[in-house]
Amino acid sequence: MFLHRQELQFKSTPDKPDAVYARKLQEVLGGQYGEITVAMQYMFQGWNMHTPGKYRDLVFGVASEEIGHVEMLATMIAQLLEKAPLGITEDAVQDDPTVAAVIGGTDVQHAIVAGAGARPVDSNGNPWQGSFITASGNLLADFTANANAEMQGRVQVARLYHMTDDAGVRELLSFLLARDTMHQNMWLAAAAELQEEGAETMPTPSNFPQSKEFTEVSYQYQNFSDGAQASEGRWAKGPSVDGHGEFTYHDGPTTTAPMPPPTHPDSRLYGTTELPNTVEKVAGLAQDKLNKE
Amino acid sequence: MFLHRQELQFKSTPDKPDAVYARKLQEVLGGQYGEITVAMQYMFQGWNMHTPGKYRDLVFGVASEEIGHVEMLATMIAQLLEKAPLGITEDAVQDDPTVAAVIGGTDVQHAIVAGAGARPVDSNGNPWQGSFITASGNLLADFTANANAEMQGRVQVARLYHMTDDAGVRELLSFLLARDTMHQNMWLAAAAELQEEGAETMPTPSNFPQSKEFTEVSYQYQNFSDGAQASEGRWAKGPSVDGHGEFTYHDGPTTTAPMPPPTHPDSRLYGTTELPNTVEKVAGLAQDKLNKE
Amino acid sequence: MFLHRQELQFKSTPDKPDAVYARKLQEVLGGQYGEITVAMQYMFQGWNMHTPGKYRDLVFGVASEEIGHVEMLATMIAQLLEKAPLGITEDAVQDDPTVAAVIGGTDVQHAIVAGAGARPVDSNGNPWQGSFITASGNLLADFTANANAEMQGRVQVARLYHMTDDAGVRELLSFLLARDTMHQNMWLAAAAELQEEGAETMPTPSNFPQSKEFTEVSYQYQNFSDGAQASEGRWAKGPSVDGHGEFTYHDGPTTTAPMPPPTHPDSRLYGTTELPNTVEKVAGLAQDKLNKE
Amino acid sequence: MFLHRQELQFKSTPDKPDAVYARKLQEVLGGQYGEITVAMQYMFQGWNMHTPGKYRDLVFGVASEEIGHVEMLATMIAQLLEKAPLGITEDAVQDDPTVAAVIGGTDVQHAIVAGAGARPVDSNGNPWQGSFITASGNLLADFTANANAEMQGRVQVARLYHMTDDAGVRELLSFLLARDTMHQNMWLAAAAELQEEGAETMPTPSNFPQSKEFTEVSYQYQNFSDGAQASEGRWAKGPSVDGHGEFTYHDGPTTTAPMPPPTHPDSRLYGTTELPNTVEKVAGLAQDKLNKE
Amino acid sequence: MFLHRQELQFKSTPDKPDAVYARKLQEVLGGQYGEITVAMQYMFQGWNMHTPGKYRDLVFGVASEEIGHVEMLATMIAQLLEKAPLGITEDAVQDDPTVAAVIGGTDVQHAIVAGAGARPVDSNGNPWQGSFITASGNLLADFTANANAEMQGRVQVARLYHMTDDAGVRELLSFLLARDTMHQNMWLAAAAELQEEGAETMPTPSNFPQSKEFTEVSYQYQNFSDGAQASEGRWAKGPSVDGHGEFTYHDGPTTTAPMPPPTHPDSRLYGTTELPNTVEKVAGLAQDKLNKE
Amino acid sequence: MFLHRQELQFKSTPDKPDAVYARKLQEVLGGQYGEITVAMQYMFQGWNMHTPGKYRDLVFGVASEEIGHVEMLATMIAQLLEKAPLGITEDAVQDDPTVAAVIGGTDVQHAIVAGAGARPVDSNGNPWQGSFITASGNLLADFTANANAEMQGRVQVARLYHMTDDAGVRELLSFLLARDTMHQNMWLAAAAELQEEGAETMPTPSNFPQSKEFTEVSYQYQNFSDGAQASEGRWAKGPSVDGHGEFTYHDGPTTTAPMPPPTHPDSRLYGTTELPNTVEKVAGLAQDKLNKE
Repeated sequence: MFLHRQELQFKSTPDKPDAVYARKLQEVLGGQYGEITVAMQYMFQGWNMHTPGKYRDLVFGVASEEIGHVEMLATMIAQLLEKAPLGITEDAVQDDPTVAAVIGGTDVQHAIVAGAGARPVDSNGNPWQGSFITASGNLLADFTANANAEMQGRVQVARLYHMTDDAGVRELLSFLLARDTMHQNMWLAAAAELQEEGAETMPTPSNFPQSKEFTEVSYQYQNFSDGAQASEGRWAKGPSVDGHGEFTYHDGPTTTAPMPPPTHPDSRLYGTTELPNTVEKVAGLAQDKLNKE
Repeated sequence: MFLHRQELQFKSTPDKPDAVYARKLQEVLGGQYGEITVAMQYMFQGWNMHTPGKYRDLVFGVASEEIGHVEMLATMIAQLLEKAPLGITEDAVQDDPTVAAVIGGTDVQHAIVAGAGARPVDSNGNPWQGSFITASGNLLADFTANANAEMQGRVQVARLYHMTDDAGVRELLSFLLARDTMHQNMWLAAAAELQEEGAETMPTPSNFPQSKEFTEVSYQYQNFSDGAQASEGRWAKGPSVDGHGEFTYHDGPTTTAPMPPPTHPDSRLYGTTELPNTVEKVAGLAQDKLNKE
Repeated sequence: MFLHRQELQFKSTPDKPDAVYARKLQEVLGGQYGEITVAMQYMFQGWNMHTPGKYRDLVFGVASEEIGHVEMLATMIAQLLEKAPLGITEDAVQDDPTVAAVIGGTDVQHAIVAGAGARPVDSNGNPWQGSFITASGNLLADFTANANAEMQGRVQVARLYHMTDDAGVRELLSFLLARDTMHQNMWLAAAAELQEEGAETMPTPSNFPQSKEFTEVSYQYQNFSDGAQASEGRWAKGPSVDGHGEFTYHDGPTTTAPMPPPTHPDSRLYGTTELPNTVEKVAGLAQDKLNKE
Repeated sequence: MFLHRQELQFKSTPDKPDAVYARKLQEVLGGQYGEITVAMQYMFQGWNMHTPGKYRDLVFGVASEEIGHVEMLATMIAQLLEKAPLGITEDAVQDDPTVAAVIGGTDVQHAIVAGAGARPVDSNGNPWQGSFITASGNLLADFTANANAEMQGRVQVARLYHMTDDAGVRELLSFLLARDTMHQNMWLAAAAELQEEGAETMPTPSNFPQSKEFTEVSYQYQNFSDGAQASEGRWAKGPSVDGHGEFTYHDGPTTTAPMPPPTHPDSRLYGTTELPNTVEKVAGLAQDKLNKE
Repeated sequence: MFLHRQELQFKSTPDKPDAVYARKLQEVLGGQYGEITVAMQYMFQGWNMHTPGKYRDLVFGVASEEIGHVEMLATMIAQLLEKAPLGITEDAVQDDPTVAAVIGGTDVQHAIVAGAGARPVDSNGNPWQGSFITASGNLLADFTANANAEMQGRVQVARLYHMTDDAGVRELLSFLLARDTMHQNMWLAAAAELQEEGAETMPTPSNFPQSKEFTEVSYQYQNFSDGAQASEGRWAKGPSVDGHGEFTYHDGPTTTAPMPPPTHPDSRLYGTTELPNTVEKVAGLAQDKLNKE
Repeated sequence: MFLHRQELQFKSTPDKPDAVYARKLQEVLGGQYGEITVAMQYMFQGWNMHTPGKYRDLVFGVASEEIGHVEMLATMIAQLLEKAPLGITEDAVQDDPTVAAVIGGTDVQHAIVAGAGARPVDSNGNPWQGSFITASGNLLADFTANANAEMQGRVQVARLYHMTDDAGVRELLSFLLARDTMHQNMWLAAAAELQEEGAETMPTPSNFPQSKEFTEVSYQYQNFSDGAQASEGRWAKGPSVDGHGEFTYHDGPTTTAPMPPPTHPDSRLYGTTELPNTVEKVAGLAQDKLNKE
C-alpha cells in the first residue's frame, strides 16, 4: 500500500524555462534507465521476493523513494515548459532563427499532447515499457541489475549536468547524483552480503550443480576476433572470480561440431526444398496427402 | 568485418521434436537477455569504445562468439519444430486432447509465419528490440550491465534445463551454462581490473567530481517503506563500498521541500485552470490574444 | 513523495494455485486498462495539473490507491503461481494431457523470466507501455478518459470473475469491482462538476472559440455507410448535448473538394513520377543539378 | 465493404510549404488519438457489435468518414513537404541557421524513408499501433472511450491551430474541429440513449449483479494522499451518479489486510530464498530431486 | 473519401466455433503481412504518389478492397468465437483436458478485452504497427514490396488452409488465396510495366547516376561464408539482371580498410578512455574545464 | 559460427564532425530497411532454410557481409559525433542560433545514452525490432522480400547522399550504393533461377494446388476506387505474369455476400446486446445462470 504526501524529497524548480532541456530530462524520467524503470523494477522485485526480512524491506524502501524521484522530475519538466516557446504561432517568428532552433529541439508532444506537461517517455519520445525492468527472483542477478541501473542512471545525470547551466536544475541533479552514489554502493553491498551469507554465490544461480554444465569450457576465454590483447586481461589467466576454476586463454573456439542438415518440415507449410524433393512432392507422395483433404 | 563458417561451436541436435519447448527456447535466443541481446550489446560497446587494446579486443572477441550462440539456438529450434505437430489439420484430431494441448502451448507463428523455423522473438512472441541493449561508453557501468546479462541468462538457461529431459537439448544447455559461467566471471574480472587500473572507479562515472553532488545524502539509506529490517543490512552502516563514505540509516527522507505551485502555460494550449482564471481567460485578457489571430 | 506500508488494502490470497488464471489476471495488472495504467495516468494528470485544490487532490488521492491495486494483483499472481505446474520436467508428464493443457495456457515467461513471479505485461505478454496513458492537461477530456478506463477495467474484471471459481480470487475481484464502481461514479461526478462550475464545458476545449470552427458541419450527422438506422438515434435530431446546436442527419458528406494534384518533391528524393517528367528529369534540367554536385 | 472516391470531404491545401508543421500534423493522423485510431476503433466496434440497428449503423457511418480524415491529413502533409527544405545539400547551407533550424525540427523520415510523403506515425515518429484502440463489446464503456477520443482529438487540433498561421491549413483544421464538436456530442448522445433505453446503465457492465461486489466500498472516496480538498468535491458526498448509492469521504483506506508471506516456488526456478531454506535446499531434499534427473 | 456498404465481397461464415483457429486467423488480419498492412500500405502509397493516372488509380483501387478483407476476417473471427469455450467457469471443467487444451490455445484477450471479438493484433497478440508498411515514393521499390507482401500473405493463408477442416472457413480462404494470386501477378505486372515505360528501371532508384557509385563492386558476389556452392548460382557469372554489368564471384571481400582509431569525445560525456588519458583527464586539462563551470 | 576481423570492408571516416547527419545515418543502420535488418533477415533465412547448397550458401555469404556494413556505419556515426556539439553547456551558447539549430536536429540519446556513440535505432530514435525481418521458408517469397529490402535501402542511401557534402561520408555511401546494386541484381537473379529450376514458381507457394482456390477471381482486377485509368495497365488485360490465366478488368467487386448477423456470445462477457435480449437477460434465463455461481 502506498500513501502520497504533497511534498518533495528535494527542491525542484528551475531558474528559467527551457523546453529543449525538458525534453532531455525525459531520459532520466521515462528512459530505459529512468526513474520509472527503477521504481517499477524494485517494486516487482519486492512482490516476487521469496525471502522476508532485510532484502525485501530494502527493495520496498527504495522503490518508494524512486516514485518520488519520478515526481520531482515530472514537476521540474512541467516548470521548464511553463513559459517556454512551444510553437504557438507568435513564438516561431519566421525571421527569428533562435526561436525556431529552440522549438526544433523540443519534444513536440510536450505541447500537442500534454499541453506543456511531462510524459512517460524517453528523450526521443519512445514510451516507457515494461520490458525495461528486471525481476527474476534470483537476488544476486537482480542486485547486479540494480547496480547497473544506478550506474547507467548516474552516468546519464552527469551528462545532463553539463547540458544546462540553470542553477535550479543543477541543484536537483546534484541531489539525484548523490542518491545514485548511495544506490550504487547499496546494491553492491547487498550483492556482497548475499554472497557472504551464502544465500547466493557465483556463478549465479549457485545451487544449479556445476557438475551438470560442460565444465571443460567453464573458465576458458575464447577469442572470436583477431585482437590479440584480450589475452592480457585478468579474465585470461589466474584464478576465476568465483574461486572455482582457473582462467585460460584460447584463440578461437576449443570445440566444434558440424551444422546439422537442413530440416524438412511438413510439405503443407510450403517451405521451398531442393529440387528432387520438390518434383517428388508435386508428383508423388505429398500429392496423395493433399488429395485426401 | 565478420566471416561465417558453416560449423557450430557445439553440437546442437535434439533427440526428438518438441514444438512447445522450441517456443520456450526462444527466450534465450530473442528475449530481453537472449543471445541476440548480448551479441548486439557487445558489438555496440566495441564500436563505441574510446580505448583500444584489451577491453576492446575483449568485447569484439565475445560479441562474435554470441552470434554463434544465436545460430546454435536457431538451429536447435528449427529441428525441434521439424517433425512436431504444428496444427496441420490431422495433427489436431478433435478427440486427442494431448495433441491439442501441445499445439496450444506452441508459438503459432513458428508454423504460420516461419514455416517451422526460428524467429527473432522471445518466448511470448514479442519481437527483439534495440532497447534491450546497453552501451553507454562508460566501461564500469557497461561491464556491470554485461555481468547482469550473463547472470540473468544463466538463470534462464538453468530453468530451461529442468523443462526438458531431451538429452540433446540438455547437452547444448550444459554448454551454454558453462559459457555463461565463464562470461559472468569474465565481466566481473574486467570490472575489477578497470578499477584497479583506475580507469574507472566507484561511484561511476568516477571523474564527475563528487564535490558537485549533494554529499549530505550520498551515503544515507532512507527507508520509504515501514519494514524495519532494512536497517540490518550492510548498506545501513559501516564504510561504503567505494571507500568514500560511511553508510547511515534513516527512517524516511532526511530532506523535504514543498511542491511548487501548479504551472500555468499559455492559455492556447487549452489546459484547464482554476475557475477565476478561467473566467478571466474567457472574458478578458486571453480573449484579446485570441482575437488578434 | 510516496511512502510504502507493508499491508494491503484488501485480502489477496487464492485458495489454490492456478497458473493459467495468473496469466489472465495480468490483463488487469499490466494491460491497456490495467492498474499500472490508471496509477500512472492519474499521477501524470496530477503532476501536469494547472489548478490546485480539489481536482488535484483527487487525482493524487486515487493514483496512490491504484499503485496499491497493482501490488494486490502482483501478490495474488505470485501466489497463484507458487505451487502450480510451470513446465518443470516432471510436471509435464507426456501422457497426462491435463497437465500439458494447463502449461500450454500459462505465460511461459512467468516461469522462465520471473521464476514464478508477476510481470509488468498484459495477458498476452505484451509489456506495459507509456502510450497507454492520457494526461492532456484538459480536465474534461481527461476525466472522460478516466471514466472510460474505469469502465473498461470493470468490464474486464467482471469477465475475469466468471473465469475462476476460486473463492479467494473472487473475493479480491469483488473488491476491485466495487472500487471500479466508485471510480466510474467519481470521474463522471468530477466531469459534471467541472462543467457546472464552468471551468470546462462542451465542446472541449471550451475556450477555443467555436466561431473559428467550420460551424456548418458542427452538428451534422453524416452517414458514410449505407445503414439507414443511424437516422433514428438521438444524435440525428433534436438539440445537441452541449446545448449550442441542433442535430441534423445527412446521408453522406455535405461538402466535397477535389483531391489536389500529386506532389512533385525534389527529384533527388528519387520518387517515381510520370513518364514525360522522368524523361525530362533524366535528360535535362535535373541532370544539370546532379552534375553540379 | 469499402469503396473509395477520388475526392475529399473538404479542401486540404496549404498556402505554403512547412515541413516542421507537417511533422506536428502527424500527431492527429497517426498518434494515440489521431484519425487512424478513431477509424480503426469504430470499425472494430462495428465488427464486434452484438446488436444490429442504429448503434451499429452509427459506428460504421462514422468509421468510414474517419478514414477520409486520414486521407485529408496525409494529403495535406505531402503538400506541406513538397517544396520545403528537407536536408538536401544545398538547403542546409552551413551559414544559414534558419534553414538548419527548420530542418532540425522536421521528421527526418519524411525525407529519408517516405520521399516527402506522410507516414503512419505520431509527431515524434512513433509508429501507430493496434493497442491505441478500444473495442470491448460493451457499448457504454466504448462510447465513453469514443467521447474521450474525440475530446482529446479536438484539444490537439485546437493546439495545432495556434501553431500555424497558414490559412489553408487553418481552414482544414476548422473543419476537423467542427467534426470533433459533432462527434463529441454524438457519442455522449449515444451513451445517454443507451442508458435511457436500459441497454446498458451505470455502473458498467450493468448486468453484473452489484450484489456480487464488495458493496461496503462501492461509493467511498478513500484519500490516499494528504490533500484535504478532495473532500469538497461532488464525489465525496451526496447521491452517486448511478443513483444506486451515497458518496462518502474517508481519509485513507477503510479496510486493511496483512501482506501474505513470501512465496516459495519450486527450487529449480532458482529464486533466492532465506538462508536456512537455502542450506536445506543445497544439502538435503532438493538435492535428491536434482540428483534424480 | 471512403464509403462503407454493409455487405461483404465474399461469404464469411464458419460451420462451427473454433476459438483456437480464431487466434491463428489474427495473423492474416493484423500481422506483419496481414490485411491491415496491405490496406494501409497501398493507401499511403496512393497519398504519397507523385504521378496521376493508372498507377495511382491502381493502388487506391486495391487499398479499398483490402479494408474489405480486414472486415471479412474480423467478421469471421467474431463468429468463430461466438459459441466457443473462452474460459468462462463451467467451460474449463477441471477434469476435461480437451476443453482446457482448447482454451490454452486461444488468444485470451479475445475474451477478456474484446468480449469475443476480433482485435488489431497478430496471432501472438502483438498489436499491428505502422512500421509494418512501406511507402517510399519510389514505385519500383514499392511494387516489389507489394509483390512480396502478397506472396508472404498467400503462403500464410495456404498454411492456415491446412490448419482447419471447417468448410466455411476454407471457402473464405480459397477466396483470399485467389485474390492473392491476382495481386501477386498484378504487382509484378505493374513493376514490369514501369520498367518498360522507363519510368523506373534497375537498379532502383534508376536516376541516381551509377557513375557516382563505387562501380568496381557493383556486380561482384563476395562470399563472406565458407560455403562454396554460392559460386554456382546465376548471380555469380553472366550478365547482371539490370543489363548494366557482368556478375563475378569472389571468395571474401575484394577491398579492405583499417578500422579507424577509437573516438575520444568530450570528457564530460564520461566515457571510459585508456589510462594515460584518464590520469591526464582527472589531474589536468579536463579538471580545468570542470572547475570553470 | 562467426569470426570477427578488426578491419573494414571499406574506408569509413568522415572529413568533419556532423551530429545531425549522424542521426540521419541511423536510418540505414537500425531502421526498417537498415543493415541490421538485412543481416538478421538473411541469417534467419539461412537457419530456417530447408535446402542445402547454393541458396543457403548465398544467404550466409551475404548475411555476414551485412553485419560488416552495420559495423562500418556504427564506426562512421561515432566519428561524426566525436567532435560535434552535442549540447554540452558551452556548445549551446544562447546567442548562437546556428549551434542551437544543430543540436536541435541531433538524436539527443546519442549524447545522453551512448556518450557520442551509435545506437541500434532508426533516424527517429525508434529501436530496431525483430518484426522488421522476413524469413518464411518459402524462397521465392523471401528472395522477393530481399530484393525489396535492397531497393528500399538503395533509395534511402541515394537520398542520404544528397544530404551531405562530406567527401568521406559520400565515399562510404558510394560503396554501399554499389553493394545495393549488386544485391538487388543478385536477389532477382536468385528468384529467377528458383523459377527456372521449378523449385518454386508463381503464384507462390506454387505447390498449393490452384484448384483449391476460388479460381473465378484469380486473374480479375476489381476496382474499388473510382479512378478509371487502372483499366489501362498491363494487369487489366492480357496473359497473367504466371502464365496460368488471363487478366480481366471489373469495375468493383464481382461477388457479393450479405454481412452475417451480429454475434451473441455468452452473456457473462458483458457485451451490450439489443434491448429485448437485455431485458430477457436481466430478468430471465441468464439470471438463472448468474445465480447458480
